[in-house]
Amino acid sequence: MKRIASLLFALSCNLFVLAQSADEAAIRKIYNEALANGQSYEMLRALTTKAPGRLSGSPNAAVAVEWSRHTMLQLGFDSVWLQPVMVPHWVRGKKEVAKILTKKQGAIDVNVLALGGSIGTGPQGISASVVEVKDFEELKALGEKGVKGKIVFFNRRMDPTLIQTFSAYGGAVNQRGGGTSEAAKYGAVAAIVRSMGSNPEDYAHTGGLRYAPNVGKIPAAAISTNHADLLSQLLKEEKDLQVYLATNCEILPDAPSFNVIGELRGTESPDEIIVVSGHLDSWDVGEGAHDDGSGCVQAIEVLRIFKAMGYKPKKTIRAVMYMNEENGLRGGIEYAKQVENKKEKHIAAMESDRGGFTPRGFTMSAPEDVKNKVKSWKPLLEPYGLTDFNGEGGGADIGPLAPQGIPLFGYLPDSQRYFDYHHTQEDTFDKVSKRELELGAAAMAALTFLIDSKGL
Amino acid sequence: MKRIASLLFALSCNLFVLAQSADEAAIRKIYNEALANGQSYEMLRALTTKAPGRLSGSPNAAVAVEWSRHTMLQLGFDSVWLQPVMVPHWVRGKKEVAKILTKKQGAIDVNVLALGGSIGTGPQGISASVVEVKDFEELKALGEKGVKGKIVFFNRRMDPTLIQTFSAYGGAVNQRGGGTSEAAKYGAVAAIVRSMGSNPEDYAHTGGLRYAPNVGKIPAAAISTNHADLLSQLLKEEKDLQVYLATNCEILPDAPSFNVIGELRGTESPDEIIVVSGHLDSWDVGEGAHDDGSGCVQAIEVLRIFKAMGYKPKKTIRAVMYMNEENGLRGGIEYAKQVENKKEKHIAAMESDRGGFTPRGFTMSAPEDVKNKVKSWKPLLEPYGLTDFNGEGGGADIGPLAPQGIPLFGYLPDSQRYFDYHHTQEDTFDKVSKRELELGAAAMAALTFLIDSKGL
Repeated sequence: MKRIASLLFALSCNLFVLAQSADEAAIRKIYNEALANGQSYEMLRALTTKAPGRLSGSPNAAVAVEWSRHTMLQLGFDSVWLQPVMVPHWVRGKKEVAKILTKKQGAIDVNVLALGGSIGTGPQGISASVVEVKDFEELKALGEKGVKGKIVFFNRRMDPTLIQTFSAYGGAVNQRGGGTSEAAKYGAVAAIVRSMGSNPEDYAHTGGLRYAPNVGKIPAAAISTNHADLLSQLLKEEKDLQVYLATNCEILPDAPSFNVIGELRGTESPDEIIVVSGHLDSWDVGEGAHDDGSGCVQAIEVLRIFKAMGYKPKKTIRAVMYMNEENGLRGGIEYAKQVENKKEKHIAAMESDRGGFTPRGFTMSAPEDVKNKVKSWKPLLEPYGLTDFNGEGGGADIGPLAPQGIPLFGYLPDSQRYFDYHHTQEDTFDKVSKRELELGAAAMAALTFLIDSKGL
Repeated sequence: MKRIASLLFALSCNLFVLAQSADEAAIRKIYNEALANGQSYEMLRALTTKAPGRLSGSPNAAVAVEWSRHTMLQLGFDSVWLQPVMVPHWVRGKKEVAKILTKKQGAIDVNVLALGGSIGTGPQGISASVVEVKDFEELKALGEKGVKGKIVFFNRRMDPTLIQTFSAYGGAVNQRGGGTSEAAKYGAVAAIVRSMGSNPEDYAHTGGLRYAPNVGKIPAAAISTNHADLLSQLLKEEKDLQVYLATNCEILPDAPSFNVIGELRGTESPDEIIVVSGHLDSWDVGEGAHDDGSGCVQAIEVLRIFKAMGYKPKKTIRAVMYMNEENGLRGGIEYAKQVENKKEKHIAAMESDRGGFTPRGFTMSAPEDVKNKVKSWKPLLEPYGLTDFNGEGGGADIGPLAPQGIPLFGYLPDSQRYFDYHHTQEDTFDKVSKRELELGAAAMAALTFLIDSKGL
């Protein structure tokens, strides 16, 4: 009996080792395909060339939809389709003008970008004196007396001492998202927000604002970090200087658009779906290369890699390119609604929306047992630079799936350069490293393979 | 007795926790200083602007020496001095010309760079037919019959499937280092080597060659990866095409130069020295930003951080900028010789020469107990992205210290982009991320602090 037990134990150990080495071999094959024959980089070149600045509702967003559909059809995925969704349609209009009007030095041009969703000042612009604050508490302390008729200048910087730049972003972005309405409550005529950038830069970072209900809308723009520092300095020297701001943006009626979806049908459990995804829309400035062309082409590349290496997934692997993450999240919301309506069974949803940078790991939003299962795969993933599985969260577009109890995974690349490019003219194809992008696609394919083959 | 033992145990645990949290606080302070008040980035801007292309023996190398000395003096280090060393003096001369001479398409210009240390063809150039090989075995199989009078074209690529690009480099670089003399043995008239680049690129990567003794010297150049592919393709179509190569490089007499050294004197054991270092010379093309301006400014920054945060090191912390890593290693060799001659006690030597990229960890060349001690510090370093302590090695310049039994440490940044820039016109300041560079300096300062305060 003891001998049989020993034999069984030895056998199970061997089977474990065999399974382990089969997984290792499959993951090695994924990386070989991604790095030696990868198409993610050329796909990203095509997307960013054909459809740069693909803001929701824009002609380029429509080009991106068609490019994605066509690309997945060409790659021979089992099915490719469009999921209709109505999206906000905001347009920047003619380039913004902003000047610091000083007595000593005259008018000084500064670089600004209207915030997405903002109303415009109109071509005549607004001139007003400026009050600088670091946060909503300072604003509140100033009250209507200190704010009325003025431009509120939110100038709290991203904390450079935080190692993860997303934490620094999280600590500053409420100025951009909610500051405008906070300022309007006290009678401000406009808001200028320090750009959400990690470093001293001359160019501004745009991004969405949310007007609070029941508060009058005022125009808002982001100012480059260098010019925020300049304005702050000049305000110290000349407290009553004015700023002139002219923005020409408009909110048009909602426009029809689409999420773009392609899939490889599962060979054993086709009704069980694993989503790999990114968002197809971008801001209108730059090319949306890191945010989030990278995520889109990585999602497509996961399926391409499986096909190329002859891996027949047990479950259905679905690549989703959501529309309108940047200024509405309509695509992600619509996708989740359809999953619920159609009672589709989603095993997991993964998103890449932190740029096409070198891999660090994955974030997870899932029950503890699922997290622990994924962490048990670390030895298979660590050789590929995937060492961080501690972060919480999935991604903005897959967030709406959370109420349905679907485990969510976020691809976690290194964050150091993301906020050099995020929402700026600098988010262009040449800022993406071929190998870093490919390693991200391979990382997503590796985790998808493990979820598909071993379950969660 | 049991109670006393328990008390002692509890006390020692508390002391451990206290020590641990003091270390944590010191490291946090290092990172705060590096990220909020860091000067490494502006130092690198200055070095690469004032002294780009600072090849050993060149005027710009002399500028770099003076800049380093001046910078460390300005920062108020306890002592700053120059260590004389004679260096090879190779000059590229007038820009290279290379053409593929085809019958069908005529002459096609291709981008090449003479290899460092190579003799020139002279302005009249060389035209010869070409034989392509992947390695020295193929060359040997061809023998004199297949090689004599021809240009040997070494075209083995860096293996893209290797995750660490330095491994891929290691697997290909013998073509550049030793290929030329191998080809000369069989009567070749010149060698053309595929550039050591990770990706398809139009620009060539230079780098050193070593002529074997007792073999005639022939000229050699690196060809861009794209043009290597083109040449290989054209050779398939037209086996007897010729290549024209004109290089104008010269080997001049050795020139006087210097290692540049600055130190903070230890407060408890000033005779025990910890070296932090990089190499000051670079290739003549580009600005030597990642290779290795980054390492130099990071070494200086380690000492600056200690001064700024008021940390008084127990041991002497010495920043060394070696001259001539690229084509001779004379600086590193001279430094080690002086350590031996002066019987200086070196506790550890650390080098940063893998670019100013985001941190991954440290490599080590040290006895097992020293390695284990450093690995026991991982919990202190992992929050800063330093997770990889498995690699062997220190760095080229500190290598000559190994025979003296000095533990060597190599700063290990992420390797994915290094061979996009290495030894090319593209190794410029704008390719360096401020935060990535700063995190590297902080990582080196953190490990230096631990070695200084806890010993090895």
